[in-house]
Amino acid sequence: MELTIERATKLQTKPNWSDLTFGTTFTDHMFVMDYEVGKGWYDARIMPYQDLPLSPAAVVLHYGQTVFEGLKAYKDDAEEIFLFRPDENMKRMNDSCERLCMPTFDGQFVIEAMKQLIEIEQDWVPEVDGMALYIRPVMYATEAHLGVSPSKQYRFIILLSPVGSYYAEGINPVKIAVESQFVRAVKGGTGAAKTAGNYAAALKAQEVAEKEGYSQVLWLDGREQKYIEEVGAMNVFFKIDGKIVTPELNGSILPGITRKSVLQLLRHWEMDVEERRLSIDELLEAAKNGTLEEAFGTGTAAVISPIGELFYKGEKTVINNNEIGPVAKKIYDTITGIQSGDVEDPFGWRVQVI
Amino acid sequence: MELTIERATKLQTKPNWSDLTFGTTFTDHMFVMDYEVGKGWYDARIMPYQDLPLSPAAVVLHYGQTVFEGLKAYKDDAEEIFLFRPDENMKRMNDSCERLCMPTFDGQFVIEAMKQLIEIEQDWVPEVDGMALYIRPVMYATEAHLGVSPSKQYRFIILLSPVGSYYAEGINPVKIAVESQFVRAVKGGTGAAKTAGNYAAALKAQEVAEKEGYSQVLWLDGREQKYIEEVGAMNVFFKIDGKIVTPELNGSILPGITRKSVLQLLRHWEMDVEERRLSIDELLEAAKNGTLEEAFGTGTAAVISPIGELFYKGEKTVINNNEIGPVAKKIYDTITGIQSGDVEDPFGWRVQVI
Ligand SMILES: Cc1ncc(COP(=O)(O)O)c(C=O)c1O
Ligand SMILES: Cc1ncc(COP(=O)(O)O)c(C=O)c1O
Repeated sequence: MELTIERATKLQTKPNWSDLTFGTTFTDHMFVMDYEVGKGWYDARIMPYQDLPLSPAAVVLHYGQTVFEGLKAYKDDAEEIFLFRPDENMKRMNDSCERLCMPTFDGQFVIEAMKQLIEIEQDWVPEVDGMALYIRPVMYATEAHLGVSPSKQYRFIILLSPVGSYYAEGINPVKIAVESQFVRAVKGGTGAAKTAGNYAAALKAQEVAEKEGYSQVLWLDGREQKYIEEVGAMNVFFKIDGKIVTPELNGSILPGITRKSVLQLLRHWEMDVEERRLSIDELLEAAKNGTLEEAFGTGTAAVISPIGELFYKGEKTVINNNEIGPVAKKIYDTITGIQSGDVEDPFGWRVQVI
Repeated sequence: MELTIERATKLQTKPNWSDLTFGTTFTDHMFVMDYEVGKGWYDARIMPYQDLPLSPAAVVLHYGQTVFEGLKAYKDDAEEIFLFRPDENMKRMNDSCERLCMPTFDGQFVIEAMKQLIEIEQDWVPEVDGMALYIRPVMYATEAHLGVSPSKQYRFIILLSPVGSYYAEGINPVKIAVESQFVRAVKGGTGAAKTAGNYAAALKAQEVAEKEGYSQVLWLDGREQKYIEEVGAMNVFFKIDGKIVTPELNGSILPGITRKSVLQLLRHWEMDVEERRLSIDELLEAAKNGTLEEAFGTGTAAVISPIGELFYKGEKTVINNNEIGPVAKKIYDTITGIQSGDVEDPFGWRVQVI
């Protein structure tokens, strides 16, 4: 497929990098392509960032047929720009499409389009350490049809948004509330797909947790509300008695790309790693008997987010004196080092844009 | 709040009522109003039906913050137009809003706006028996913000779509596949809200069932996949050994307005009614020992949809010789009679539009 480019006639003045709040500033251009059953993907284009017309009867507005991704581009000291494992995001997005009865697409073509878009917007990639250009691919159902069946038309968009450093003031562990009433996802549902409904379902618990002073929610499984799943927009790892434990991919957890990278690193370092069911009771028992050494979330936004406190059924559990632990620190330094080009990349995770 | 009206300058030619397919034809006008945190609802208007501009970063496209409703307007022999229990739809929509962290609204104001819209579009209400004007209120999050938190802006729309008779060829019982792999909703999730993610999650199972010749899916609970919940876009009732049984509202089932009306009717008729947990095993056991007398779905689309066959784990169970049963028939005749004005309405369910 050909990719056409229409340049914006007027460019925005770039914001002050230090003033950025996540996901509210967008660059001057975006990538768009359309799909129709019987025709396939067509009209791939880079065009000025703008509102787009949508039918008020579009399937996405009523029945939530939409999937998205999130990754980042980093500028290194030589002003070169790199992506981190974009092929993994394309693969996951195609998997999400399958679950939501949406058309799949050629991931390699989209990565090439993404690169061209970033090249045009290269001045939007902050050169400041810790900052990056956030990339948001999204595909949604556009057919005007109120019947509950897969849409016959879709739109694929890539938005770019410069994002500030997650840890401008140093890595501060987060306080997390373990959720025992609301459920994010269940076996047989859409939890393993990056789709809108999972996030809509999570808002209420998040709201309640924030009111109580917790920054995010730790989800338990939807069947027994007993086994640990993930945190807000992060997968979760624990160091228990010298071993690193993370919930196995059971169909209701998002298969995080940071999670996958952390597991690869830990195994590369020949550390003891277990992907398995882990109950909240086992975890709190480990905390009580002193064998819970570290806890941290993993995700594209923060890479590693140490967990300093858990709140469950009225009880607080402080982990590692509310400080980042050595394993979390080592992973954080290594992955962010690879992303920024300061640390060697033995896995071929970096993909050059320019 | 004031309601402004902008008339379409060019009207469509009305379609042939007998050619209508559900949810693809829309009338010339729609209702729109907007919301912003700190400002509340504003700019209520009736305007020509058209595509609307939406930011590609709008919260609804990424995080699925959206709720909807579905009800119908019926024209009787005197050319008067009536709604069926619109207050119930407004109440349920406000409940859905609460679950999705969306703003609530004045249901009475929206009903008045709906009436004005229908009055303008009165020629779009088919006067043919069994046909109606389908009314689709929908509210979705419009803020351009990629952070996972409630949107600060929303849009409320009412669309109108004339719909054909569900039973143009007589009431034919449907074949239903009992779903044992996929899950629609779980306790603690969003199943009791009329929100997009529930429908997106259901598409895959529906696709599989259709391939196997079944028109819809009977959902089991998300925890044990053992207890009956509902069918596609219908609640479900069974007559077992003289008693009418329907799953209780347990937090993961949509509280259907037809369900509620059917229960009121049955109690009015002093029939034995039970709202309780009902396992698929108990149901199939009843079928085997001959006490399963009837099965039917209830919903706005078809009112009553008799179930003639269930398919579960490779086994087919035929119910009431694949014919509509006397209870289903009596309910169908009574409710459609009340809706069309042919039967007395002792409950005050009809609300006059013009
Ligand atoms: C629900 C959820 N879990 C986990 C993650 C972490 O995934 P990744 O490491 O690919 O960013 C994310 C965020 O992207 C998420 O939204
Ligand atoms: C999931 C679901 N269950 C049940 C129903 C039936 O509800 P009502 O009787 O209010 O139309 C619907 C349809 O509206 C639905 O979408």
